[in-house]
Amino acid sequence: MTQAGAIDGAGTGQDAVYDMVVLGGGSGGYAAALRGAQLGLRVALVEADKVGGTCLHRGCVPTKAILHAAETADAVREASAVGIRAALEGIDMPAVQEYKNSIVARMYKGLQGLVSSRGIDLVGGWGRLVAPDAVEVAGRHYRGRNVVLASGSYSKTMGQEISGPVITSEQALELDHVPASAVILGGGVIGVEFASAWASLGSQVTIIEALPHLVPNEDEAISKQLERAFRKRRINFRIGTRFESVERTHSGVQVRTADGAVTEAEVLLIAVGRGPATANLGFEEVGVAMDRGFVLTDPHGRTNVPGVWAVGDIVPGVQLAHRGFAQGIAVAERIAGLDPEPVDDVKVPKVTFCEPQIASVGLSEARAAELHGAENIVTSQFNVAGNAKSQILGTQGFVKLVSLKDGPILGFHAIGARMGEQVGEGQLIVSWEADANDVAALVHAHPTQNETIGEAAMALAGKPLHNHG
Amino acid sequence: MTQAGAIDGAGTGQDAVYDMVVLGGGSGGYAAALRGAQLGLRVALVEADKVGGTCLHRGCVPTKAILHAAETADAVREASAVGIRAALEGIDMPAVQEYKNSIVARMYKGLQGLVSSRGIDLVGGWGRLVAPDAVEVAGRHYRGRNVVLASGSYSKTMGQEISGPVITSEQALELDHVPASAVILGGGVIGVEFASAWASLGSQVTIIEALPHLVPNEDEAISKQLERAFRKRRINFRIGTRFESVERTHSGVQVRTADGAVTEAEVLLIAVGRGPATANLGFEEVGVAMDRGFVLTDPHGRTNVPGVWAVGDIVPGVQLAHRGFAQGIAVAERIAGLDPEPVDDVKVPKVTFCEPQIASVGLSEARAAELHGAENIVTSQFNVAGNAKSQILGTQGFVKLVSLKDGPILGFHAIGARMGEQVGEGQLIVSWEADANDVAALVHAHPTQNETIGEAAMALAGKPLHNHG
Repeated sequence: MTQAGAIDGAGTGQDAVYDMVVLGGGSGGYAAALRGAQLGLRVALVEADKVGGTCLHRGCVPTKAILHAAETADAVREASAVGIRAALEGIDMPAVQEYKNSIVARMYKGLQGLVSSRGIDLVGGWGRLVAPDAVEVAGRHYRGRNVVLASGSYSKTMGQEISGPVITSEQALELDHVPASAVILGGGVIGVEFASAWASLGSQVTIIEALPHLVPNEDEAISKQLERAFRKRRINFRIGTRFESVERTHSGVQVRTADGAVTEAEVLLIAVGRGPATANLGFEEVGVAMDRGFVLTDPHGRTNVPGVWAVGDIVPGVQLAHRGFAQGIAVAERIAGLDPEPVDDVKVPKVTFCEPQIASVGLSEARAAELHGAENIVTSQFNVAGNAKSQILGTQGFVKLVSLKDGPILGFHAIGARMGEQVGEGQLIVSWEADANDVAALVHAHPTQNETIGEAAMALAGKPLHNHG
Repeated sequence: MTQAGAIDGAGTGQDAVYDMVVLGGGSGGYAAALRGAQLGLRVALVEADKVGGTCLHRGCVPTKAILHAAETADAVREASAVGIRAALEGIDMPAVQEYKNSIVARMYKGLQGLVSSRGIDLVGGWGRLVAPDAVEVAGRHYRGRNVVLASGSYSKTMGQEISGPVITSEQALELDHVPASAVILGGGVIGVEFASAWASLGSQVTIIEALPHLVPNEDEAISKQLERAFRKRRINFRIGTRFESVERTHSGVQVRTADGAVTEAEVLLIAVGRGPATANLGFEEVGVAMDRGFVLTDPHGRTNVPGVWAVGDIVPGVQLAHRGFAQGIAVAERIAGLDPEPVDDVKVPKVTFCEPQIASVGLSEARAAELHGAENIVTSQFNVAGNAKSQILGTQGFVKLVSLKDGPILGFHAIGARMGEQVGEGQLIVSWEADANDVAALVHAHPTQNETIGEAAMALAGKPLHNHG
């Protein structure tokens, strides 16, 4: 806590005046703070808990650690298929927790070092917007020529009390044992990631999703492939099925769905998405325009109140840490007088780290057809059955490119073991509006899974190499 | 074998006349054949062994299968670090072989299907160039308006007899047990891949490399990082050390080096590179210009003899299957009257599948400095210690970008577990001559290893996010 020393001649009374006061130290907030400080702004970063926010402490990072433990359990279980004799002796969940916590602690330490090395005033405590240019923390006012709202999000609960066997991802990440069985409400990213991890760790999982498909925000072909894969993995899911009620029993929960079915399990994980954490923070009182709890901004992150900006999960759109980073950076640059491109949600890459992994960026086929007319859209799909490295990994899936006819590639979609990392090439293709020939002309390294992108592009360009399709 | 039926009115006697006769069914040859047939050319593909060649049957693909078995052994061994209780009970090398062979068989079957579905005449037997427009196989002439030489490469042996404990990669791939100890002559791609696999499978490995570094064709920073990693893995290597002689003993080999040291091991793997397989194939007799066994071509694959082309490992440059694919495709397109871009070796991506993996494309820092002057080159390195996914995988390494000052990124270099797959974004950056700002403006998905590229680019653009450097 260095806020006292940071006044630095800027004010003489109780108020410190900053170029930028950031309310919330998660992905969007700390990125804004780091970039602002780098550009010479005087920055205060207000955070009640720990810098890093949901993503680092209760979201992306710990989830991926648990998913890696799950992947390792699968590798051991399936080792004999590649000639390695191994016995899976058990899941030591306290040790998984220790591993997960050590990763979080290491990244947290690194982040703290960055924040302090850039001279940012980290203010510990609950902040509240009390004027367009002031955030109050524990009775003290932090004044800023600009205030960046970055208060993040919380797990929605559908009105259920979170206690005992009824949990959200936050509690799920801290379990000291693998639940013998679980009902997961919601087949979106968080739901399928936990389903995948727990299934690998030995749990009997049932997903309940009201929409007609798992990962309903992905291209439908991806959803269907994931459903095939989950069926093979004996992960139960009931799609197009509405949740009705949950009852706590002596052994866990009874979950009732609108189709009349009752499913018993040790826990119910509610994973129906995240709401904006904007209540009681003074936003409305100061006149910030909002919609159902979200803060409305222009493409540059400006709210309707001059000098007040917003970034991250409180801004309508895809709630992803890296979108928050990008928005935070862009807002800091704009405050510093630069003219960055606005962050375009369509070009924000998405990775779902279930097994098989999913990566996508740009438009789904359905959305592209909606925007451009189905007759103007062409697609190409390369099945990883034709890819040596995918076969070595024993995975199934595909890469799908969605393109304007004789025009740029609009969407990249991939599914298969480890395919999440292919998103890098995907986003360059989509962001740089490459067409099939641009990509087909490139040499992709053999034998990598990365080749699948080259193959899909070659097929799209009318010159398939290893494509049987 | 459909060559008899394929004459199809083109000739009446013994000679079938094709648009393209391809001599050699490896990566370069079959790609030329597939693309040629697709463009309507009548194609004969001559192969004495199996289509797919070295890469599929004795090179890239089987090596990667063994490396994946090795990776699995490591995953089991290190499982407790992520909370998974597992016992490594042994390496069942016959089962590893079975797994490896099943992958090769599956890909081979797919390739055979492609070749036959495209109406290519597959001619089984040793072919020999007997005229600028004719290849002889078992006394029969296959005439082509164009002949594409694609005879591939062989393992060089430094004059040693390959027998018993003195082997090349070909024999190494077929071993029915893991050698208790091995000396590997050559610290290039093949040498370090086998060193890595065998070490993971329990072998005591010593690499002997005459040049000052392992993987001497990579950026020096990559070599040094690999050396650090191998030291940690207790893989012995002696760099700057010349091989002198090998003696067979009752238990294996005694390898003598120029520094006077003698190393004993069960096997000596000679992995000093691959020579062009061009002897006794009639090339010189027909007047094809050659240099130390390599076939000389212009950038489009034309030899000095009109109508005779060459692709793949017999053409001087990087000997990689995907370069062969690209050259084969380009030559077929040119024969068919199209005007493809020549394949530029600098833009051919390279992946080395040792643990940690290496990926690179474009210029090393040293080469960039040579070409453009050190004062015009800037670099950026992002250590994966700052990347959450890399930390989850427990790996060390970095991404390094080499750039012209205020100009395009000229080189991409990466090292770390699974980093090979990052080569896709790397090659797009280098091939499309992106600069730091182009890449820094993109949103990279969190938490992926792919972020390391974004971080390196942001640092290069003067706006590092998570970079402590």
